[in-house]
Amino acid sequence: MDVIAKLPAPLGWIVGHAPLSKNALEKRSWLSPWILVKTLDSILRGIAQAFQEPVGAIASGLTNYSAVLVGTVTASLYPVFFHLPLTLPVWGFMLLATVFSVCIGSALGSILSPFKLPYFTLPFNIATSIAFICMRAHGLAGLPEEAIGQVNVSEAVQWTEVLRGSLLSVGQVYAVETVTGSCLIIAGLFLCSPLLTVISVAGGFFASCTAVLVSSAPYSMIYAGVWGYNGFLSAGCLFFFMVPSRRLFILAVVNAIFTTFLQAAIAPVFAVSQLPVFTYPFCMSSLLFLAMASNGGMDSKRVTSLTFPEQHFIFHLKESNIEEISKMDNP
Amino acid sequence: MDVIAKLPAPLGWIVGHAPLSKNALEKRSWLSPWILVKTLDSILRGIAQAFQEPVGAIASGLTNYSAVLVGTVTASLYPVFFHLPLTLPVWGFMLLATVFSVCIGSALGSILSPFKLPYFTLPFNIATSIAFICMRAHGLAGLPEEAIGQVNVSEAVQWTEVLRGSLLSVGQVYAVETVTGSCLIIAGLFLCSPLLTVISVAGGFFASCTAVLVSSAPYSMIYAGVWGYNGFLSAGCLFFFMVPSRRLFILAVVNAIFTTFLQAAIAPVFAVSQLPVFTYPFCMSSLLFLAMASNGGMDSKRVTSLTFPEQHFIFHLKESNIEEISKMDNP
Amino acid sequence: MDVIAKLPAPLGWIVGHAPLSKNALEKRSWLSPWILVKTLDSILRGIAQAFQEPVGAIASGLTNYSAVLVGTVTASLYPVFFHLPLTLPVWGFMLLATVFSVCIGSALGSILSPFKLPYFTLPFNIATSIAFICMRAHGLAGLPEEAIGQVNVSEAVQWTEVLRGSLLSVGQVYAVETVTGSCLIIAGLFLCSPLLTVISVAGGFFASCTAVLVSSAPYSMIYAGVWGYNGFLSAGCLFFFMVPSRRLFILAVVNAIFTTFLQAAIAPVFAVSQLPVFTYPFCMSSLLFLAMASNGGMDSKRVTSLTFPEQHFIFHLKESNIEEISKMDNP
Repeated sequence: MDVIAKLPAPLGWIVGHAPLSKNALEKRSWLSPWILVKTLDSILRGIAQAFQEPVGAIASGLTNYSAVLVGTVTASLYPVFFHLPLTLPVWGFMLLATVFSVCIGSALGSILSPFKLPYFTLPFNIATSIAFICMRAHGLAGLPEEAIGQVNVSEAVQWTEVLRGSLLSVGQVYAVETVTGSCLIIAGLFLCSPLLTVISVAGGFFASCTAVLVSSAPYSMIYAGVWGYNGFLSAGCLFFFMVPSRRLFILAVVNAIFTTFLQAAIAPVFAVSQLPVFTYPFCMSSLLFLAMASNGGMDSKRVTSLTFPEQHFIFHLKESNIEEISKMDNP
Repeated sequence: MDVIAKLPAPLGWIVGHAPLSKNALEKRSWLSPWILVKTLDSILRGIAQAFQEPVGAIASGLTNYSAVLVGTVTASLYPVFFHLPLTLPVWGFMLLATVFSVCIGSALGSILSPFKLPYFTLPFNIATSIAFICMRAHGLAGLPEEAIGQVNVSEAVQWTEVLRGSLLSVGQVYAVETVTGSCLIIAGLFLCSPLLTVISVAGGFFASCTAVLVSSAPYSMIYAGVWGYNGFLSAGCLFFFMVPSRRLFILAVVNAIFTTFLQAAIAPVFAVSQLPVFTYPFCMSSLLFLAMASNGGMDSKRVTSLTFPEQHFIFHLKESNIEEISKMDNP
Repeated sequence: MDVIAKLPAPLGWIVGHAPLSKNALEKRSWLSPWILVKTLDSILRGIAQAFQEPVGAIASGLTNYSAVLVGTVTASLYPVFFHLPLTLPVWGFMLLATVFSVCIGSALGSILSPFKLPYFTLPFNIATSIAFICMRAHGLAGLPEEAIGQVNVSEAVQWTEVLRGSLLSVGQVYAVETVTGSCLIIAGLFLCSPLLTVISVAGGFFASCTAVLVSSAPYSMIYAGVWGYNGFLSAGCLFFFMVPSRRLFILAVVNAIFTTFLQAAIAPVFAVSQLPVFTYPFCMSSLLFLAMASNGGMDSKRVTSLTFPEQHFIFHLKESNIEEISKMDNP
């Protein structure tokens, strides 16, 4: 059943959910020197559960995923966005936001589950936006005056910078703005699923290019990857939740482009409240596209049991074969 | 079964879905001189499918209805609203909006179907609003400064102009602002369903009158029919989706009035983003009233198989009779 | 079955839904001098149905509850908020808002019922907001210029005033700003359910304290109880719809705090349209927490048959006992 288990042995130890490592460690006793490796494996799988498999987490009721996101992403986003230090009161607000995010996640799970829709990073988005607005009351958040009014300079688009921006957008998912950070994330994601990596990076690229179309100069935010990370997530998201096909490539690119249009439409509204768009554009756009797939729209098909895209595809092929054979047996 | 088929012969050829024409043409071969008439009939029924029977279209999965709306309504709305020519980049944006509208329509269909609610013109509304906002980045949309700030002049209401405005509102559904256009649409609609025509025109009238109550001078937009077309659609909508009754007349008028209140409430918000209200007020208000009917609220009843109001009413009478007879047989 | 009936006799006549009074009156004929007491009992139970048991009312399809709210709360809120007299045109707008609220309530009931969520005071909130915005067109609503821009004075928090404000917040639920009014409401609520009273007042207290955290000086609105009434409703709401438990105390306090965060986040947006926040923060926050409970999130449990918290708790204990006994019988 496990596709990865049939790969050449060395890959089976690290690729996807690394089933060979899991099997090997399961045979070892916790009362042996292996305890160290087993503990490390547990912690790594735990973190992975939180970061890379939100849906598995949702299915298992692991709503602490949202809380982890609030704690980590907000901590890295706050100093970058507001140019203010992470003081004790800020941590206090973030603690409350963490509690709220768990409640919001549980509620959204209840409301969205009849539609078979995941809530993505919405609890993080909602809890952090509310916290950021409330932090302004005592000057703990808010942009300096001069940063708000952007001058509309007529400036030529530097396409190499757009390309670099679409690479930086990978890191921006975790509010990291370095080429090295982006490359590390791409390498890690590639080990898990080459297909997911290719389509996600393509999503970030198309989003950054679309941003040139839907935003005005200066384009510094595009060059920094801020216009790409929502598209990166949107394109990847479809390849994670839907059965891969040639048509899905087009859908994923359309989702990345629509996400960028949505970002351009809501960014001015968010700017009035001095808020970044977080990953709202990704959430809203991808909810729409997944809702479409639930309907079978555009010949799209939702994955029933989530692991990773390559395995989804192979399972789908097997199922299609079984159906055809059973049709031939019972004509 | 077909009510129209029992009408005096000449009417059966043109009234409603014109079943006599259909039957007559079905008997003719495609390999005869009738091919021209048959082709014309096909094209006309095709266009009608898109324009006049959105719900039949939805039921049949004909999501291209939204795309047609984006293409036609946007093309006529754009030059009127922004006073700008339809250039090639504008067509590019509209092409993208067309693609988005199909995806949005499919998604909304999936989300609204458990509630048995149609998505009306929402895909067109959402896709076009987003496109209009994005087109502003490079000056392809947006109002000149002086047009935004309207002077609040104390001006007496000219009721004959309000009456003319409620007539113009019929054409405004398709962004046409001429009395001739409105009369043609009324004549066409009357052939299809006199009942629908009367209630829709009444809706436009009540909406235009309500607009005097909920908006300030100058009233030029009321005189142009801009405050009436949402009410026109709202009143008609109820008579299309619900079984006609005397009580439904009151509900349809209340819907037209509520639609106008909603328009007054959201228009300032849309104006900030330099957007018209499109048919959002109609969509939101009518979704509420149809949701109420699904519940059986206000003794209202949804139509199960959609054709046109007169037939809905006759079918409903028959069903009620059958129920009563079966009650008498099995007391 | 009736817990209250087993209380010492005098309490059974007035506590909760006063079953002893009900039984005693049922034995009397309408054709006796008792007719006066019976009529008074009917009217009081009728008003209680509308004001204190919205959910019972919803279940029975008594959508006139929303209309009563629009009529009473708007009438007391309007002069306080806009400093304008209740003239005839204002009553006209309120009459229309009443009609709209009934339609909105019926629609929301239809949309929320699959999620087993009540619509709280949303129909009142929506209908009154729309009416208030529309009344501005002819100067029937709207704040004087100087009232909008609040000066941000650095001012020390007077905690005794915050405490008084959390008491005043009880009356603010009905737009009453007097200590006497609050005390009367607390006394009445205590007769019905001591548990509900304690948690609701605690909710108002925590909300008022949170308001100091999330709003800026001057704190006059906190001292007036305006920041507490949403928290008062939110905390009480959970103890009405969920089975009481120690954990629920924490959840109710979290709900009151989250409600206040939400109020701080939406108040500036509402202020732009010169609207108060009404009870929107309570509605939105409590819908989330009830949705969570439907899911069994946080070990919370929805009450199946609504009476009052003390009885909910005793029924729950009985049910748990029966389950345990049946487990022992059929091991």
